Amino acid sequence: MNNILIIGGAGFIGSQLVKKLLSSNKITVVDNLSRGSTSYIEEFMEHENFKFLKFDVSNKNECNSAFSEAINFGEIDEVWHLAANSDIPAGVNDSNIDLKDTFLTTFEILNCMKVYNIKVIHFASSSAIYGDCQNLKISEKTGPLLPISNYGAMKLASEAQISAASEHFLQRANIFRFPNVIGTPATHGVIFDFINRLKLNKSELTVLGNGTQQKSYLHVSELIDAMLFIKNKHTDSKVEVFNIGPDDDGVTVKFIAENVVKRVSPKARLNFGEGNKGWIGDVPKFRYSINKLKSLGWKPKLSSENAIIIAIDEIANQLT
Amino acid sequence: MNNILIIGGAGFIGSQLVKKLLSSNKITVVDNLSRGSTSYIEEFMEHENFKFLKFDVSNKNECNSAFSEAINFGEIDEVWHLAANSDIPAGVNDSNIDLKDTFLTTFEILNCMKVYNIKVIHFASSSAIYGDCQNLKISEKTGPLLPISNYGAMKLASEAQISAASEHFLQRANIFRFPNVIGTPATHGVIFDFINRLKLNKSELTVLGNGTQQKSYLHVSELIDAMLFIKNKHTDSKVEVFNIGPDDDGVTVKFIAENVVKRVSPKARLNFGEGNKGWIGDVPKFRYSINKLKSLGWKPKLSSENAIIIAIDEIANQLT
Repeated sequence: MNNILIIGGAGFIGSQLVKKLLSSNKITVVDNLSRGSTSYIEEFMEHENFKFLKFDVSNKNECNSAFSEAINFGEIDEVWHLAANSDIPAGVNDSNIDLKDTFLTTFEILNCMKVYNIKVIHFASSSAIYGDCQNLKISEKTGPLLPISNYGAMKLASEAQISAASEHFLQRANIFRFPNVIGTPATHGVIFDFINRLKLNKSELTVLGNGTQQKSYLHVSELIDAMLFIKNKHTDSKVEVFNIGPDDDGVTVKFIAENVVKRVSPKARLNFGEGNKGWIGDVPKFRYSINKLKSLGWKPKLSSENAIIIAIDEIANQLT
Repeated sequence: MNNILIIGGAGFIGSQLVKKLLSSNKITVVDNLSRGSTSYIEEFMEHENFKFLKFDVSNKNECNSAFSEAINFGEIDEVWHLAANSDIPAGVNDSNIDLKDTFLTTFEILNCMKVYNIKVIHFASSSAIYGDCQNLKISEKTGPLLPISNYGAMKLASEAQISAASEHFLQRANIFRFPNVIGTPATHGVIFDFINRLKLNKSELTVLGNGTQQKSYLHVSELIDAMLFIKNKHTDSKVEVFNIGPDDDGVTVKFIAENVVKRVSPKARLNFGEGNKGWIGDVPKFRYSINKLKSLGWKPKLSSENAIIIAIDEIANQLT
């Protein structure tokens, strides 16, 4: 039984990860509850192998407190770092948001891992580090890396800092480059937004941009499956980087909007805006190669389309 | 006549850049004088088109003061950002050094450029962002980017933040990925270290590592020539990334040590250590492709070997 620290563990993906890992591990969740919620981890609160600590690890003192309290539960075998700003447009307007929540979290976590001699980290990175690669099928070897949002920039900064720490004191770092991840408990994202807007106005849904933006979507259950698969594979590198995503070219915003309307408010009219970007920092088109992950033996069961349909239903149930 | 702000302009490369640009531009140098020195820019101090401001731009308030004072000299047309920690081993031991001096400098500069509506930046990045690529000939498209020092990590973070700013408010960003740059006024680096050690002990020189580490070296005069060449080329991209370096596979540390001994203290004995890394964060072997720069029409005149021989002579004169 390993002792695992999950930072950002009360969020959308974190809480699903806890559920999966708690059956055979001791889990400590650290979360500042900015996007996360204790309601997502309520079911684990009484579990003897579960502990929750509210700290903001972007702050040096709070991060130190989180680690020193967590260590009372036993020596920490590995850290999962899933804490970040998830409001990308907010971070474009104010670069301090992603500096603090997306990068300084990583920076302080690594400093504490060095102090407490913890040698394994699993990190939630993002396809946003690639920027706008247009029609290119993006592999882990794609460069140059020119993110177009401060969120993407600070995820790349985090990867870089983890890589340097691997040379210095880490034994193993897995960097997972997430696509758009969907499912429940949703806290943000395109489906979440569309359904919320239809709750305010049942008769129409206005989409930012012309609806041709096309991206890959992965269901959270498959993401967690892939991460645990990678965690359990031995490779010789101290740092491993993986694109995780569906094995297709994704779906358009139009497809998502149509299916949200169909599920939630079938009579609503759909309005589209102009241009192929929803907002500054949005990547209009995005094609992911997951060949590295496939060559290791993992592939997704759901297409982007299937994942979207399932997640729309789940989020509609969550929000009504 | 453009009004140019050069941050880190009192350092080794910055002061040479000032010399080149001052003949046809108004120049304001901002430097915290941690590695730089007013002695390097003394000759320009009385020039009517030159102004020096001592500020540490990694600090938000000081950065704001630097820009608000600089702007009194006239609207700023472009910023050159050459300020960074240059002691890589120190930054490996204490990650706060590169966070502050290598990344937060960039972060605060970009925030000020946004406030003061300055749209052009030239940035001194580094081959350190590539990490240890072993025998690979590194092009700008090489990935993944896995730096092995905090310095490399924070240079990559800076690139990423500049890239995101280009999507948001910059019109043009040139990212120059420097190789090892040599010449005078030297403030650090392998030649500088070797000569200083021979000054302390004329009879022997002990080299960290076994001497087989092999890197490309470019003379500072050629670096500046290449950067100005790129600055004056129009391309359609908002962000351009260039490897700048010699057109060869570099020279070994052994070659450098032998030639330093020959020039400075011909009777000294040379001792080598073990392993092919001088220190944690050091990249043992490094081969740069400069095909992108060559295809634009620039190529270096000196080989790494020639540049080393010239720089040894210059630095020996500087230090004696």
